[in-house]
Amino acid sequence: MSRIAYVNGSYRDMRDACVNIEDRGYQFADGVYEVCEIRDGRLVDMPRHMARLQRSLSELRIAMPMPLPSLSVVMHEVVRRNRVTYGIVYLQITRGVARRDHGFPARPVPPGVVVTARSLNFAKNQATAAAGIRVATMPDNRWARVDIKSVALLPNVLAKQAARDRGAYEAWYVDGDGFVTEGASSNAWIVTRDGRAVTRPLSHRILAGITRDVVMQVLAELQIRLEERPFTPAEAKEAAEAFVTSASQIVMPVVAIDDAAIGNGEPGAVSRRLREQFHRFSVFS
Amino acid sequence: MSRIAYVNGSYRDMRDACVNIEDRGYQFADGVYEVCEIRDGRLVDMPRHMARLQRSLSELRIAMPMPLPSLSVVMHEVVRRNRVTYGIVYLQITRGVARRDHGFPARPVPPGVVVTARSLNFAKNQATAAAGIRVATMPDNRWARVDIKSVALLPNVLAKQAARDRGAYEAWYVDGDGFVTEGASSNAWIVTRDGRAVTRPLSHRILAGITRDVVMQVLAELQIRLEERPFTPAEAKEAAEAFVTSASQIVMPVVAIDDAAIGNGEPGAVSRRLREQFHRFSVFS
Repeated sequence: MSRIAYVNGSYRDMRDACVNIEDRGYQFADGVYEVCEIRDGRLVDMPRHMARLQRSLSELRIAMPMPLPSLSVVMHEVVRRNRVTYGIVYLQITRGVARRDHGFPARPVPPGVVVTARSLNFAKNQATAAAGIRVATMPDNRWARVDIKSVALLPNVLAKQAARDRGAYEAWYVDGDGFVTEGASSNAWIVTRDGRAVTRPLSHRILAGITRDVVMQVLAELQIRLEERPFTPAEAKEAAEAFVTSASQIVMPVVAIDDAAIGNGEPGAVSRRLREQFHRFSVFS
Repeated sequence: MSRIAYVNGSYRDMRDACVNIEDRGYQFADGVYEVCEIRDGRLVDMPRHMARLQRSLSELRIAMPMPLPSLSVVMHEVVRRNRVTYGIVYLQITRGVARRDHGFPARPVPPGVVVTARSLNFAKNQATAAAGIRVATMPDNRWARVDIKSVALLPNVLAKQAARDRGAYEAWYVDGDGFVTEGASSNAWIVTRDGRAVTRPLSHRILAGITRDVVMQVLAELQIRLEERPFTPAEAKEAAEAFVTSASQIVMPVVAIDDAAIGNGEPGAVSRRLREQFHRFSVFS
């Protein structure tokens, strides 16, 4: 776990890393976050993560707490102090501390900034990817603006736990029209039997995944056809392959959806290739 | 504001009242809350609030952090230490502190408990009620389980601010079928021209307001007919009266919805009567 965290201006031991109880992140989920992969001690695709962060903040009318280069320095410093070579760095920005009242504080307060970093087990993650994961489908019951990467994640928490209770690793949300939106913490993909990669187009109903975006570049480079369109769980269960994308999992093969094995029940060739090739297209900093 | 807060076992000065950055309330909105009115230094309708709290916790599979009588002692003590005679007491319970992971912690951790209390200005609130408030209608974009009183309040924050930006005090959410669900932090009511009080029936789409519940008792006692059914903004704009109910506002008359004046543009007789009579039916502790 992270042993050192950056909290509102100082580096703290995790045990002493705390925020005021009237931080609006705590009382209202009034904040946003980003998770970046760390590889060889370097941050993966920071410019894209920072661009998405700025968009999320802008949608919520939360000011950038410091210039981007300063934020980047803090994130690198947290990674360094925690001696993470492979893992993730987590950044959370909230509207700040103010007397509890739903509306924005009348006089602006400084946004809250928290950064943590922790090592992940590379060998274990590779083993998970080699085996593939199971996903469980369930109704998408989230709010209408999940394109904003906010910390209002309670529905995602419940979906993830419901998936786990059903022996799966990830939840795939299904909208009212019967189409998969995305995973509880990932974007959802299938590969058709004739080799096209399919994922839902961007809208307010899914998060604009950075990994999703980079995978599209990889697909173009590998000359694999991309179709941005919704798909149903039924189509997914009949697909040649399925996988999910996220910063912490990169490309993670899916071998079962509910009780249906995908393909021959093992990670597919396209999924494996995308995972292998992915970091050739990443920007390291 | 609250000067003394109870935080996870101790009474703290607000400046030092903090929670760990890995409290799941902060990172996932994984927690619930209650707000009780304080009148003459006593807590209003605690048994009902505690029953709703238990239901919210149960829906999220969060354990009660302490027996109800102990929780009641803490809430009274926070009210006493802050010398609040008229105001509100706020209770927040989260799943606790654990390494960031969407699913519930594998080994249960102690839930986080925060209690604050603060004085409200009685004369000012009475003046607001005498003038009545404006509400602004907007699409209900929240998740599908707002019957759980969770701290995942970002949509409510944005709605409240959008209402304020439009010169209104409260937002009224309108569902996909064109019916009002509730306010961003209150239940919504109208009084028809023939004197029936109308509010939406309970479901997963609205919060089971304690004040709403008590108002139903008051209506029965005053022999005012109650209709639990959805209504549209158009019907509301043509109604004789409108009002909202919540623990901090009790019965608050609505004098305008969007740009339409309600009735003669002043608080209605039924709304005023309900507000006056309300505390005859409250349980004080």
